Amino acid sequence: MSTTSQWIMEKATRAPIDFQLANCIRALAIDAVEAANSGHPGAPLGMADAATVLFARHLKFDAAHPDWPDRDRFVLSNGHASALLYAMLYLTGYEDMTIDHIKAFRQWGSRAAGHPEYGHARGIETTTGPLGQGIAGAVGMALAERRLADEFGADLVDHHIFALCGDGCLEEGISQEAASLAGHLGLGKLIVLYDDNGITIDGSTTISFSEDVPARFRACGWHVQACDGHNVAALDQAIAAAKAATTRPSLIAMRTVIGFGSPNKAGKESSHGAPLGAVEAAATKAALGWTAAPFEIPGELLARWREIGGRGMTARKAWQERLAARPADVRAEFERRMGGALPAGYPDAVEALKRDLFAKPQKVATRRASQIALEAITAAVPEMIGGSADLTGSNLTRVKAVDSQFTRSQSGRYVGYGVREFAMGAVMNGMAAHGGLIPYGGTFLVFSDYARGAIRLSALMRVGTIYVMTHDSIGLGEDGPTHQPVEHLASLRALPRLLVFRPADVVETLECWDVAVRNRHRPSLLALSRQAVPQLRGGEGEDPAGNRAGLGAYVIRSFGGDKRDVTLLATGTEVSLAVEAAEALAKDGLAVAVVSMPCWELFEEQPKAYRQQVLGAAPRLAVEAAGKFGWTRYVESEDDVVGLDDFGASAPAERLYAEFGITREAIVAKAKALAGRA
Amino acid sequence: MSTTSQWIMEKATRAPIDFQLANCIRALAIDAVEAANSGHPGAPLGMADAATVLFARHLKFDAAHPDWPDRDRFVLSNGHASALLYAMLYLTGYEDMTIDHIKAFRQWGSRAAGHPEYGHARGIETTTGPLGQGIAGAVGMALAERRLADEFGADLVDHHIFALCGDGCLEEGISQEAASLAGHLGLGKLIVLYDDNGITIDGSTTISFSEDVPARFRACGWHVQACDGHNVAALDQAIAAAKAATTRPSLIAMRTVIGFGSPNKAGKESSHGAPLGAVEAAATKAALGWTAAPFEIPGELLARWREIGGRGMTARKAWQERLAARPADVRAEFERRMGGALPAGYPDAVEALKRDLFAKPQKVATRRASQIALEAITAAVPEMIGGSADLTGSNLTRVKAVDSQFTRSQSGRYVGYGVREFAMGAVMNGMAAHGGLIPYGGTFLVFSDYARGAIRLSALMRVGTIYVMTHDSIGLGEDGPTHQPVEHLASLRALPRLLVFRPADVVETLECWDVAVRNRHRPSLLALSRQAVPQLRGGEGEDPAGNRAGLGAYVIRSFGGDKRDVTLLATGTEVSLAVEAAEALAKDGLAVAVVSMPCWELFEEQPKAYRQQVLGAAPRLAVEAAGKFGWTRYVESEDDVVGLDDFGASAPAERLYAEFGITREAIVAKAKALAGRA
Repeated sequence: MSTTSQWIMEKATRAPIDFQLANCIRALAIDAVEAANSGHPGAPLGMADAATVLFARHLKFDAAHPDWPDRDRFVLSNGHASALLYAMLYLTGYEDMTIDHIKAFRQWGSRAAGHPEYGHARGIETTTGPLGQGIAGAVGMALAERRLADEFGADLVDHHIFALCGDGCLEEGISQEAASLAGHLGLGKLIVLYDDNGITIDGSTTISFSEDVPARFRACGWHVQACDGHNVAALDQAIAAAKAATTRPSLIAMRTVIGFGSPNKAGKESSHGAPLGAVEAAATKAALGWTAAPFEIPGELLARWREIGGRGMTARKAWQERLAARPADVRAEFERRMGGALPAGYPDAVEALKRDLFAKPQKVATRRASQIALEAITAAVPEMIGGSADLTGSNLTRVKAVDSQFTRSQSGRYVGYGVREFAMGAVMNGMAAHGGLIPYGGTFLVFSDYARGAIRLSALMRVGTIYVMTHDSIGLGEDGPTHQPVEHLASLRALPRLLVFRPADVVETLECWDVAVRNRHRPSLLALSRQAVPQLRGGEGEDPAGNRAGLGAYVIRSFGGDKRDVTLLATGTEVSLAVEAAEALAKDGLAVAVVSMPCWELFEEQPKAYRQQVLGAAPRLAVEAAGKFGWTRYVESEDDVVGLDDFGASAPAERLYAEFGITREAIVAKAKALAGRA
Repeated sequence: MSTTSQWIMEKATRAPIDFQLANCIRALAIDAVEAANSGHPGAPLGMADAATVLFARHLKFDAAHPDWPDRDRFVLSNGHASALLYAMLYLTGYEDMTIDHIKAFRQWGSRAAGHPEYGHARGIETTTGPLGQGIAGAVGMALAERRLADEFGADLVDHHIFALCGDGCLEEGISQEAASLAGHLGLGKLIVLYDDNGITIDGSTTISFSEDVPARFRACGWHVQACDGHNVAALDQAIAAAKAATTRPSLIAMRTVIGFGSPNKAGKESSHGAPLGAVEAAATKAALGWTAAPFEIPGELLARWREIGGRGMTARKAWQERLAARPADVRAEFERRMGGALPAGYPDAVEALKRDLFAKPQKVATRRASQIALEAITAAVPEMIGGSADLTGSNLTRVKAVDSQFTRSQSGRYVGYGVREFAMGAVMNGMAAHGGLIPYGGTFLVFSDYARGAIRLSALMRVGTIYVMTHDSIGLGEDGPTHQPVEHLASLRALPRLLVFRPADVVETLECWDVAVRNRHRPSLLALSRQAVPQLRGGEGEDPAGNRAGLGAYVIRSFGGDKRDVTLLATGTEVSLAVEAAEALAKDGLAVAVVSMPCWELFEEQPKAYRQQVLGAAPRLAVEAAGKFGWTRYVESEDDVVGLDDFGASAPAERLYAEFGITREAIVAKAKALAGRA
């Protein structure tokens, strides 16, 4: 008799109802994967016992009210085990997840996608699949919980974040970044259950993974336990002990058998990423003592699961009463925050600052402009929580209203993420998905590469994470090509849904920030300069309540009348350079318009007539201190771009601009040639 | 009296010559940063003692022969401490690093760039600055050393890899990926010196970093020591003990004082990333007892350093004799390998396979085509070393010739990188920089995001790392949008120097592999399909010795004569779809050319006349199952691209192609409209 069969028999004897409940998950996972002829049965089979214990005995939730703000969050970091999550949601009675969705697992239109997709169904707390990011997102949720509890009190905010993860998550470096940060901040509400099954896609973890995971987490300040992941009592005790460890995050290393129950594939990588096959599926169900038809859950068991789904109702009602008992203004503020609306006074704060800037123009770097904007915005928007990946003084992300540091002993509005760009991004996504906070965080634009996986998830999840990326070109100077972004603007513009901003002056920076803050279902990335630029905006008759940057692109200067000889397109620090060039061209008798294009994505969303009017019919020349790739969207060919063809170099900024030919003279010469006036 | 001053006095008493040697580094670092008015003095001041001990007593090198293959490698992972490296190179007598370069630190044209740039001067073993990647690169070098030692014997290959790193490197997740892998593989020749100075850019490490680093590395199977980083004897002993630990990589956690010697900035973040300033620089030199003029090294000390630079001469000569004593064929092979030339029989192997394919066409996925190519190429090129980030069965990177697994007990030609894409990339860069091996490694194209920082460094360093990225579009199907690349081709095409390949069939895949293998100073990335495509190439009269994919783009099919009505541009799996559409268009009387564009970068490097001939004068339509961004380089607008506007979805591939409108019918309709024949 195989070890697995022995375990199964012991289990059936020891804890029949839990075992049967877990088998409901197993059966649905098997059926879903078989029907799709695609998917990952191994992890759901292996983690079903742990999920049962967690949902039946610990997780605070009310399936009928999946948006209850004080629910525990459940994150399936090993997202390929999605069938388990869908099974949990269906079994416990989330209305978004019907059996028909599970029957259509991995098919067009089903909410039960190949990997959990945030927004497909309530109860899917975040998108997972790209490994490691679920853990980091859970850290963000725990951070949000801590912050909101401090703001609104533990009677309104007091929930745990549970994350399941596998070896793959822990092999990814982001898991270390996240674990180190969580340990550092003592996020006691975070509990990670590690599915230690000894198997990766390529085979035994001994091929590539032999570290002592518990020791590693202890080194990061975590509370660590190990237990049998198929032993209900042991799991129950471990989770209880993890909850009792309130000053440290907890790791429970569960020894499990992947593909548990499968007579021939349990404990093997063959159960990981492919259907068991009809024969083995049948054999597995037989071994588990499961006799129901595919996708059918015996009435008694389903009823038991539905009871579990309603277990949190009492707690939720009590919470609702506590909320109702709060003063009206506190209640309103809490509901506003969790609902994602901005404060009523927010628009005035932006407009007031803009009036100031119009009255007293400022020549500053756009990173400094960002700081000026943040001073006003964070003071008006208490849900904004800032931070930097150890570049606070460079990113200028810390301002008065968020000056309180988030530490072990007090939550604050400023997070020292450390040199952990990827975790920063994923943590911010977790905060955004949690609700109640608007996260922003800074690093150098070149290190968006490190965070790219998280930026993509921000876009895919449609969350309003805000990336503050300074040192946005060769203009950073001496640090050289390792620190100088070249291809980054293009590579980020290629990403669907992301708003990429590169403002030209202090006013545009404020406007871009305004758009970013208002977009709660779309991420934003601000590319900001190290070097100073003159204020171009705020001339006669300009309405401080408007937002030109929000149009994506607009004519910022025009010389010589409506019949243009040439149009200069530019972004960021190169807009003022283009304006200088346009002035020189105008002196030579050319009619020139300068178009500032702080956000290509928003410009593409404007009506065609507006776009045509801005771009004009005259030849166009683009100016951007970055790679030329992508500019052919707006100019005839890359020959019509004043930009870079290769990486930068180490030297003072002025020298670099001169050496790479991004100069007023070069623009003038090219523009004249384009206009046929050379 | 400050602690620092006490230390300095103790030091001056205890080990005067070492202290003076270290002060040469300090003085040069101070002078370089002051002259540049830019840079990072803190780390060079803090690590000067360790660097002195390492170079003077342990590092095996001969400054007069910086390319000696059996030299120890020195990697400065905290690359912002570049002034230290340049000082070492100058002091020990590397001819590439003159005092004039150091005087021009961080200026245009100086080899002493802001961060160490591979290729600027021999002795700079790799590019560092993007934190954490230096450690991972060092792991790659240690891996290469182990492999080459097994191949050629310890009498030819027996050297250590020393890496210096700071807190920032260890906060980055990639350091954990690399450390875990190195520990797993027992890379005993790797010795990391950790500059534990308790300071990050934002201030004390207590803001964000409180993990027990030694415990974390022990958990990864490392040999771990701690010592005073200013105590020469302790450092000497620790390095000796690390070298004696031959079956495990070593970490030496050195407690150091950042900005050591600076009376007012030592131990503070203010010494990290800005010049000390003239007053503090003078005070520091005074405290150190340094009286020489800026950039001047007292003759006796420079002589001592030059002696150190020649210390390895005897060992190098003995090595040269051992090499000379080897059989001529072994010597020739070793020299070929280290010189980077391909084996004489390589072109024949490629041509033979192509003849086979011409004779017996194959309808296979391009990932399978890649495996077919690899079978032939790896058998002919023994320096190729493969691997995958735990997706071997999906990437199809493992073939017969590389079937030997790299383990603790034996080096092999296949590395199980684990789910560590970023480390895989950086490790491969390290192997490439080490020399003697051609690394390739696989993951899913979507996870190029995770490895992006390393891909950028491959390009910046001009090393020939080869990325095998399968599952290159929505064609992967059910795994859904988290796994489906959309923006990746564009974002990679935006990266300077990188060759991005997306071959159309088995023949093109072989040709792309051939170009990749031949390009030893430029990285390549192959985007390969999960789904099968027909073989399009190998028709009558085609020369098997040619390489059409190497042109970047070419007319693969032409219907209806030279006067085209429309041109279809496509890559990868969409080329055969475009051919089908072209056949339909031809039936309707249109003259159509189909252009396969497996590599945009190579196409751009062709003569203009060739490019014009391929692209033609007729309207053009592009077809690629990816985001449309960037295609305006070749088509009028993104309306003329059959591609994607948003993320993908979870469903079978055929359904996705139909839902997203990437179909023969859509191509035909759009092409007719473009040709004015709708």
